[in-house]
Amino acid sequence: MSDWHLARRYQYAGIVSGLRSEPNRRDLAVIVTDTPAAAAGVFTQNRVCAAPVRVSRERLPRADARAIVVCSGNANACTGEQGMADARRMAELVATELGCHPEQVLVASTGVIGRPLPMPLLEAGIPKATKAVAPGREALSDAAHAILTTDTGIKVSSRILDLAAGRSTITGFAKGAAMIGPNLATMLGFVLTDAAVGPNDLHHVLAAACESSFNCVSVEGHTSTNDTVFLLANGDGPPLAGHDLATFQDAVGGVCAELARKIAIDAEGAEHLIKIEVEGCRSDAEAKTVAKTIAESALVKTAVFGSDPNWGRVVSAAGYSGVVFEETDLSLWMGDMPLYRAGVPLPFDAAAASSYLKHNREVHFKLRFTLGHGRCTFHTCDLTYEYVKLNADYTT
Amino acid sequence: MSDWHLARRYQYAGIVSGLRSEPNRRDLAVIVTDTPAAAAGVFTQNRVCAAPVRVSRERLPRADARAIVVCSGNANACTGEQGMADARRMAELVATELGCHPEQVLVASTGVIGRPLPMPLLEAGIPKATKAVAPGREALSDAAHAILTTDTGIKVSSRILDLAAGRSTITGFAKGAAMIGPNLATMLGFVLTDAAVGPNDLHHVLAAACESSFNCVSVEGHTSTNDTVFLLANGDGPPLAGHDLATFQDAVGGVCAELARKIAIDAEGAEHLIKIEVEGCRSDAEAKTVAKTIAESALVKTAVFGSDPNWGRVVSAAGYSGVVFEETDLSLWMGDMPLYRAGVPLPFDAAAASSYLKHNREVHFKLRFTLGHGRCTFHTCDLTYEYVKLNADYTT
Repeated sequence: MSDWHLARRYQYAGIVSGLRSEPNRRDLAVIVTDTPAAAAGVFTQNRVCAAPVRVSRERLPRADARAIVVCSGNANACTGEQGMADARRMAELVATELGCHPEQVLVASTGVIGRPLPMPLLEAGIPKATKAVAPGREALSDAAHAILTTDTGIKVSSRILDLAAGRSTITGFAKGAAMIGPNLATMLGFVLTDAAVGPNDLHHVLAAACESSFNCVSVEGHTSTNDTVFLLANGDGPPLAGHDLATFQDAVGGVCAELARKIAIDAEGAEHLIKIEVEGCRSDAEAKTVAKTIAESALVKTAVFGSDPNWGRVVSAAGYSGVVFEETDLSLWMGDMPLYRAGVPLPFDAAAASSYLKHNREVHFKLRFTLGHGRCTFHTCDLTYEYVKLNADYTT
Repeated sequence: MSDWHLARRYQYAGIVSGLRSEPNRRDLAVIVTDTPAAAAGVFTQNRVCAAPVRVSRERLPRADARAIVVCSGNANACTGEQGMADARRMAELVATELGCHPEQVLVASTGVIGRPLPMPLLEAGIPKATKAVAPGREALSDAAHAILTTDTGIKVSSRILDLAAGRSTITGFAKGAAMIGPNLATMLGFVLTDAAVGPNDLHHVLAAACESSFNCVSVEGHTSTNDTVFLLANGDGPPLAGHDLATFQDAVGGVCAELARKIAIDAEGAEHLIKIEVEGCRSDAEAKTVAKTIAESALVKTAVFGSDPNWGRVVSAAGYSGVVFEETDLSLWMGDMPLYRAGVPLPFDAAAASSYLKHNREVHFKLRFTLGHGRCTFHTCDLTYEYVKLNADYTT
């Protein structure tokens, strides 16, 4: 916690509203910016999207955001018109406390799909949380805890930037766990900065940062109904431009990449972080298609869990990705061990390969094609007994 | 076994060649047709396809097939030029015994990827198996056993047809287990008939039968390098046409559908067969896209394993399938329980829903859209501890 850098003029709360069955589990977060902030959002591409996603999407980008309210334990998804009214009401409750317009408040939810929100709990909880906001690391930690579902820990990443206009800070936090598919994940991410950035620039910065971070992580490829990443910038003064804007873009990308990696390693039941690097494709998009297909193969993921160097599963997943290639175009390494070169299997030390998988928490597959210069780095995790256990008994 | 109908003029053998580490495990099958048969094949669409797939694909369709040779335990995939030579040699060894041309012999393999075939075992085993062929149910059972990998049992299906030309029989057998993705599966299927059918008709019949059977079953969506289905017809006399050909088409479809269902229920570790019925899409292809996406969601599959009626996972998987719809277009049933109607969740008895999942080995989800008349029935299985266990330690 001591190494978290805090963007100025943000306050946080994370309280127990009673949404969760576990006693004393924080489940309701409010983030307030003391001065109106430019705000952008990136959302799930699922056709079935939750009410808070619909409500927040229509409010962004904007120049005057004041707060974000988030509940965990209930996704408010597949809840029809009642769900829309409930999501709007969540924002309204915050706005009443802050004396701002409800449109200035953004909403996010995560949890079980298809159950109406227990509004009496939120009618009581949201004013309480909004009154409780405070600056500082402890309040941030409370908020970061309140957004979790089956995550085992909070995910925070921050950066300090030295810009021409002076020093700025970016503070991000996220939740992941499962139902993590590219095009975001069952994930919520909140990235806050005290830099001054215009809403449209902010949107482009966020979209680009998500593309190479949250969109390059997958647990099982199941795109959630609730994926949401917000980026707020509450700086005053002239908006960043030129070199400073590029520096800011890189830093937001770095924060999102770190959060995405933390989501993959903390995926439900995961024992290994699997990094899949694909290079030499015709385009970055093609490389991502190959990497994503491998990352989502249950057979690749169980092999890593079992420390089984069954590399044929990696090659065969590449083969059904839809990308056109010949076997002679492809070579494969696991860690620094070459396993397959231009379509021919290489002799390898199976015991050493198994040991590599067994003794490294982060394992690495590299595929090199001879088709061009497209590349992608993708993260996933192994598929374990614990994943099955956690997901076999989630709602009941 | 007593209810298997046997197509005439076929002989079978399934022997122990030593390819498998388990002692006395049958691992080599030979199927011989006493008279030359019209033959067609359908193969994996994986870019990385095994040597026997390449060899057999270039030999089909043809009018004079004499035999099929199949080994299990080694896929002969990702094995380069040596693998091609080995696959051709397998056919040649059968052809020498039968006194036919090697091109008249088809080849299939299943098992671990990326290991050279242990040819000395096959040089000895294939002549032995070819000499051992016999008609009858016991020999068929031996062959059906010899093609298995982690299947728990053989899969056989047969039909008798009364055609204008007289009585014909169709006998099919298959293996499945895992790495079962649509566009075939890690599956091998052999369908034999004593009807007279021209090679081109045979190809169309087989392609259509596979499309609605083996291409509508998925375990984890990992398309294998080795998927192969052969259809042989050794009848003499004028080829079937008109009404008889249509009857034959239906019967081959029925045999393939029964084999596909047996593959899904015997998938690695499966405790439930999950039937997903989608209707009311703009086209059958769209309905299949939705059904396949649901069938391959690890979250849907673990929920069924855990008897957890977490229906939001089904709806959200439909939502990220890529098919365009609004939530109000969709209604969902589990068994005969309505759960979601036109975008609104319905109250339901969670205990009864959980009990439905717990006490039925075959469970059923039906999605109805309001977009058109396209439909698809797809089969998958649940994702269990046992699946993870079996796949965490396959090669080592």
